Amino acid sequence: MLSSKKWIGAFLQESRISDLVLYFRSKIWVVRGAKLSHGSYVVIDWTGLRAAAAEAAKRAYAPYSRLRVGAAGLTADGRVVTGCNVENASFGLTLCAECGLVSALHATAPSPPPGPPGPALVAVAVVAGDGDALLPCGRCRQLLLEAGGAALLVDTAGGPVPLGELLPAAFDGADLSARRGPG
Amino acid sequence: MLSSKKWIGAFLQESRISDLVLYFRSKIWVVRGAKLSHGSYVVIDWTGLRAAAAEAAKRAYAPYSRLRVGAAGLTADGRVVTGCNVENASFGLTLCAECGLVSALHATAPSPPPGPPGPALVAVAVVAGDGDALLPCGRCRQLLLEAGGAALLVDTAGGPVPLGELLPAAFDGADLSARRGPG
Amino acid sequence: MLSSKKWIGAFLQESRISDLVLYFRSKIWVVRGAKLSHGSYVVIDWTGLRAAAAEAAKRAYAPYSRLRVGAAGLTADGRVVTGCNVENASFGLTLCAECGLVSALHATAPSPPPGPPGPALVAVAVVAGDGDALLPCGRCRQLLLEAGGAALLVDTAGGPVPLGELLPAAFDGADLSARRGPG
Amino acid sequence: MLSSKKWIGAFLQESRISDLVLYFRSKIWVVRGAKLSHGSYVVIDWTGLRAAAAEAAKRAYAPYSRLRVGAAGLTADGRVVTGCNVENASFGLTLCAECGLVSALHATAPSPPPGPPGPALVAVAVVAGDGDALLPCGRCRQLLLEAGGAALLVDTAGGPVPLGELLPAAFDGADLSARRGPG
Repeated sequence: MLSSKKWIGAFLQESRISDLVLYFRSKIWVVRGAKLSHGSYVVIDWTGLRAAAAEAAKRAYAPYSRLRVGAAGLTADGRVVTGCNVENASFGLTLCAECGLVSALHATAPSPPPGPPGPALVAVAVVAGDGDALLPCGRCRQLLLEAGGAALLVDTAGGPVPLGELLPAAFDGADLSARRGPG
Repeated sequence: MLSSKKWIGAFLQESRISDLVLYFRSKIWVVRGAKLSHGSYVVIDWTGLRAAAAEAAKRAYAPYSRLRVGAAGLTADGRVVTGCNVENASFGLTLCAECGLVSALHATAPSPPPGPPGPALVAVAVVAGDGDALLPCGRCRQLLLEAGGAALLVDTAGGPVPLGELLPAAFDGADLSARRGPG
Repeated sequence: MLSSKKWIGAFLQESRISDLVLYFRSKIWVVRGAKLSHGSYVVIDWTGLRAAAAEAAKRAYAPYSRLRVGAAGLTADGRVVTGCNVENASFGLTLCAECGLVSALHATAPSPPPGPPGPALVAVAVVAGDGDALLPCGRCRQLLLEAGGAALLVDTAGGPVPLGELLPAAFDGADLSARRGPG
Repeated sequence: MLSSKKWIGAFLQESRISDLVLYFRSKIWVVRGAKLSHGSYVVIDWTGLRAAAAEAAKRAYAPYSRLRVGAAGLTADGRVVTGCNVENASFGLTLCAECGLVSALHATAPSPPPGPPGPALVAVAVVAGDGDALLPCGRCRQLLLEAGGAALLVDTAGGPVPLGELLPAAFDGADLSARRGPG
């Protein structure tokens, strides 16, 4: 469904645009190119990501809130990972859809990373059971930050925005390293 | 330590300023008036809040990260509540300092609330063991949102900012009510 | 309300019993002596602990589950700490009553601990809004384990039981130390 | 890798044994038959589950604790789902391996469940990076309980045990239903 078609990436890079609407076999594909840290482009099929998130939302286990949520993310190496919310009778143990997505991001990696992993998520769509975009809660913004960095694009009702705009001035690993005590 | 001295509130309201620096017995008190939803003012003694947070940080149980954190919050009824981080061998069960603060906000309320509680926190200072401000993680921004709303002032290295600026376009209870499914 | 009345402790130690029912001013106090690791006794006023937990439950913020929970714990140095559950629109960020209790255990300690803290909780009562005992969820058993060890007494409908019976073969800090990798 | 070979199930049922050691192409497969609630048997290939958990542990994101953990579970319909721990700079947001497993259990279900889902997990193996069994923390026991019930088999260094023995007298959805207040 998703692909990192090189010619589209090159075209986007050349043309300095980042959005592209494709008509293919009477379906509309809204694609967007995200510039990766290593300079290449990956094409984000937002329509496909939203559909994958909606499909995941159908599998949500949400007997307590009845708010079904699904999430789908595109990785820098072109994989799509998904998650749905899984609630618990002890409400505080509930796993959001983005928790599942971040878990799957690592657990389903094709091979164990050789060194410390860099940000791997490029784009994320989160939808409720009604099929429309739902904004991640604070916890999940923090989880996504560690998985994709501030440049990770998050879908919203008004279109994709960088995660850095949803979690500005974020606490992160640098704080942890710099501010910890001697022992 | 903290108080909602009426004459200061009235003065701030009259003079249309929101900050005031007091020199009292050779100590500097930086106060700021937060307009409450019911129209009156409460004076925020940021120096005192930061000191309370620093004192709480000394009680942190942080054997795994060695990052001691303390938090202190001022309530609309003039109480100061505090918390420190409490870590766990199962890292994911760690309670941040703001978790403790929000728990104390409710558990130490002078009397059980008669109806559905409105936002009760007015100002929060969070400091690391080094005594300087530390930004709340995403989870804690969400916890503070439910405890104080988007107008809650959060101390930062650059001075207090409304929580709404640290967690813009937030997921909240309205999303939960409006987007849940039929059953 | 609670106290470590030395003569009762001495009596319990001498008489080798661990329970005592006191009738005082027409009120019944069920007390139990818990042997601390340093050899002395602390008297557990279970009636008082349950009452403190019930009082905390009244302050619960539980608009989503409507399950109000309160917890009260006795520390080795004779303090009583309490907590109530605090829910969140993002269900997974909900803090159980025991979370608040464990936070308060540390944040309200009379002075910062000089070294690594040992188990500090001796007895815990958890009640629902109906006033009867409620068993802690798995997360909270793990939190209590780190705060009080396997000998911590937890109140149940059938009377107090050691935490070790509620979380047998527990994961703990020793696993973390022994099983972690090189880097 | 795993399968619900009918003849083995029938054999186990006939012979009233629940364990079977198979020698096949010079490899040893320890299998165990778990009786499902609907009366049939599923064969648990513990060797395979442990191997899947160890493979997942290699994908763990554990830069803070350096304790890599992997989990693999067998579902009643014969699928194997896995998870690894995913840590976060905000320690309390860490997802254990079992969190990922439970998320995957739902998110990767072949089709959305038509009604309220019954317990779906039958057996779980959790291993640390050293390849040996690791006991789930309290949170994860609670998550597994909602995903598989008290009869779910959990691998330990001494062999599989029912989850009910690791989380006795558990808080569960029945408590939530029966003990919640009027509103």
